[in-house]
Amino acid sequence: MKKFISVKDLPSIEKAIETAFEIKKNPYGFQHLGKNKTMVLVFFNSSLRTRLSTQKAAMNMGMNTMVLNVTEDSWQLESEMGVVMDGKNAEHLREAIPVIGRYCDVIGVRAFAKFEDKEADYSERILTQFVDYAGVPVVSMEGATRHPLQSYADLVTIEEYKKVDRPKVVLTWAPHPRALPQAVANSFVEWMRETDYELVVTHPEGYELAPEFMGDVKVEYDQKKAFEGADFVYAKNWASYTHYGQILSKDFGWTVDEAKMALTNEAKFMHCLPVRRNVVVTDGVIDSPNSIVVEEAYNRQVTAQAVLKMILEG
Amino acid sequence: MKKFISVKDLPSIEKAIETAFEIKKNPYGFQHLGKNKTMVLVFFNSSLRTRLSTQKAAMNMGMNTMVLNVTEDSWQLESEMGVVMDGKNAEHLREAIPVIGRYCDVIGVRAFAKFEDKEADYSERILTQFVDYAGVPVVSMEGATRHPLQSYADLVTIEEYKKVDRPKVVLTWAPHPRALPQAVANSFVEWMRETDYELVVTHPEGYELAPEFMGDVKVEYDQKKAFEGADFVYAKNWASYTHYGQILSKDFGWTVDEAKMALTNEAKFMHCLPVRRNVVVTDGVIDSPNSIVVEEAYNRQVTAQAVLKMILEG
Amino acid sequence: MKKFISVKDLPSIEKAIETAFEIKKNPYGFQHLGKNKTMVLVFFNSSLRTRLSTQKAAMNMGMNTMVLNVTEDSWQLESEMGVVMDGKNAEHLREAIPVIGRYCDVIGVRAFAKFEDKEADYSERILTQFVDYAGVPVVSMEGATRHPLQSYADLVTIEEYKKVDRPKVVLTWAPHPRALPQAVANSFVEWMRETDYELVVTHPEGYELAPEFMGDVKVEYDQKKAFEGADFVYAKNWASYTHYGQILSKDFGWTVDEAKMALTNEAKFMHCLPVRRNVVVTDGVIDSPNSIVVEEAYNRQVTAQAVLKMILEG
Repeated sequence: MKKFISVKDLPSIEKAIETAFEIKKNPYGFQHLGKNKTMVLVFFNSSLRTRLSTQKAAMNMGMNTMVLNVTEDSWQLESEMGVVMDGKNAEHLREAIPVIGRYCDVIGVRAFAKFEDKEADYSERILTQFVDYAGVPVVSMEGATRHPLQSYADLVTIEEYKKVDRPKVVLTWAPHPRALPQAVANSFVEWMRETDYELVVTHPEGYELAPEFMGDVKVEYDQKKAFEGADFVYAKNWASYTHYGQILSKDFGWTVDEAKMALTNEAKFMHCLPVRRNVVVTDGVIDSPNSIVVEEAYNRQVTAQAVLKMILEG
Repeated sequence: MKKFISVKDLPSIEKAIETAFEIKKNPYGFQHLGKNKTMVLVFFNSSLRTRLSTQKAAMNMGMNTMVLNVTEDSWQLESEMGVVMDGKNAEHLREAIPVIGRYCDVIGVRAFAKFEDKEADYSERILTQFVDYAGVPVVSMEGATRHPLQSYADLVTIEEYKKVDRPKVVLTWAPHPRALPQAVANSFVEWMRETDYELVVTHPEGYELAPEFMGDVKVEYDQKKAFEGADFVYAKNWASYTHYGQILSKDFGWTVDEAKMALTNEAKFMHCLPVRRNVVVTDGVIDSPNSIVVEEAYNRQVTAQAVLKMILEG
Repeated sequence: MKKFISVKDLPSIEKAIETAFEIKKNPYGFQHLGKNKTMVLVFFNSSLRTRLSTQKAAMNMGMNTMVLNVTEDSWQLESEMGVVMDGKNAEHLREAIPVIGRYCDVIGVRAFAKFEDKEADYSERILTQFVDYAGVPVVSMEGATRHPLQSYADLVTIEEYKKVDRPKVVLTWAPHPRALPQAVANSFVEWMRETDYELVVTHPEGYELAPEFMGDVKVEYDQKKAFEGADFVYAKNWASYTHYGQILSKDFGWTVDEAKMALTNEAKFMHCLPVRRNVVVTDGVIDSPNSIVVEEAYNRQVTAQAVLKMILEG
């Protein structure tokens, strides 16, 4: 595997699942692969789980790690080509990326959507330059439009907890005080479409995800109807794609609560975290035995390590 | 040892001293205990000594380390239960802590008193949640009311430098331009009470420490009288406990200077650092041969490592 | 080698070049030297290359590393002696440095010129205190007046790419929107003077470097004349030394462009990075095959590791 930006980079979804469970059983069994190898984690945005789980994954593989917080540690970086750099950005990605690539064997990058320019975000301007200029494999730690490490962990978590071969998985929009990127939702849909699960997406009108991610996935605008018989409820807020980056609703009627969960087939509750309690989901739901958010978060480490294993094995 | 929050968590004070000296003699002799183990250091506040000495201690034990600066690296974290999270805090400790715990084997936490709410501070709201939710041992890297890694280092330093079995140890308040927590002073008293040293505390009126820490320890309001015959002078500023978080005095008459040190039994001068020169203590005293602040700081590494050894040995 | 602050600290320039090429061929061959040794990297200023390349160098040597960002991680540090510390600085270098030194085996320090006080900058007030108080070897990761890790990498890069024994090397000033220190330029001149290359420095009037660095090196105020027959063009902006810290010119006539490079002997283009594209140098030049800035940056890792090897060997 030469990079990990989307589900398409995997050798196969079966191999991905198999590798994850192999790692989960034997996390320290592959340290020879990482000996004298280094991963640099580049953060353009904040991170808790991704920061810790990816570092831990690399260390489990026997690798060294270095972390670069672009805003605090380094110069501000320019991403547009051909520009006269007499403003605030002191260095261009065109130099910074290949230089970082020379100091390591794998680069992880986090670069969120900025919601300033839909084109720039959906072309993954920063991530694409990393892939093009790094000279070493690049792992997305969440781009502007996808969060594949999260989706990989979500998939493995569903595989662990599913009670039927073809579970019903519901992705539900939920309210949030701030405008959040579509990356987690896009990516979740993209990954679920690679499985034979029954996938239903539910959200208020105006929150339709980008067609290239949704394809022919079913949208059910009635959240309660969507929840009926669900085996997994995956909650997530995102800002509007069509009215790009806007908040169209903060309707607490969409909060995932005990009454709605009662409509499901004792569904497991999932969320990528961080989650706003009593906004996205009630305390009652997230603190219930059916909440699997902590194990889901642990699987971030497992699948990050699986990604590194597949990369280090070439 | 399952956690390290106060002196009460130690198997015994004798075992603690013995382990520290064992580590000091042989810092690299226990790396098998830390193999494939990871410590995460979580900082809600700034740190120099604690940051470096605790990381170094963990590395000496053969552990991997990861550092999380909550303010710069991550989301802001909510610590109150039952709240509707539509404000600035993006994640609740109720999720963040168990997730961090899944990525590591020991968590170190620094969370100072905020001086907004005495109850919240003295209930150690953040530290207590870490202990309750982490699922792995938690080491205080300074809480709201105690700084046990510092006190442990202080104890070991006194053991190294004492010339009599039962030295006279004086904890003296000193002026400072800012309102500082009582943690170091509380903790120092708590630890000294576990020894048979002669302990005297001196401070201006209004600076009485919390009764649960002081017990029946003698307060001598006349600083010069307190210094007479002292073997160790431990200087530290703290804000008022009774007038919670307030500065009642900036009296430079309380600065530790050469004249006062001349009243002692050639006392060693100690301070946890960072220290304000010529405010808390004069250049003349801290630069004198009787100043042992650097060795005291080095013992932070020794005792942090001793704590990790006791934890890793179970 | 006991410290690495300037070219004078090297055993010899020949030994330095030899060690660098030895490391470049065999980066993982000396890990026994760094076993159970730790390097602390202290940053008073931002860093990308230095941060990553020096950490990587230390890890290649088998060392542990810890990073301290003074501004974000720690207290603000006082550097003046004898001061009453009742202002914003909470700790004095007089304590902080020996304490850091007790937690590690080598300290790297970055402390740029502040342009507030020429005397303070040119006496290297911070770096000098580190050397005096650390108790362990100190490596400059760029001081106020020199950047020896950069110059060492520059030297090795020229040695790798030179086609004649005695290449013509041109250091050219270039415009920049902000006032930058003279450290890279000073240091480059200092190192080049240790070789038998032909060195020419070119800049607008008023940008003369400090006499102690320049000695009798030739200044050619006509940039085009300077470029004639050059084998290497080294571009760098610096603020005025005589009108200390001032920007006297932002003349884009000094930008390194294709027309000027055409005057050279197919010169290689070098820059320490970060570089302002289309201000210091045009896209056309830095993207040309004669641009060796990325390999030059990679040599930062190589020579940092060579420095550590020479230090660890004593």
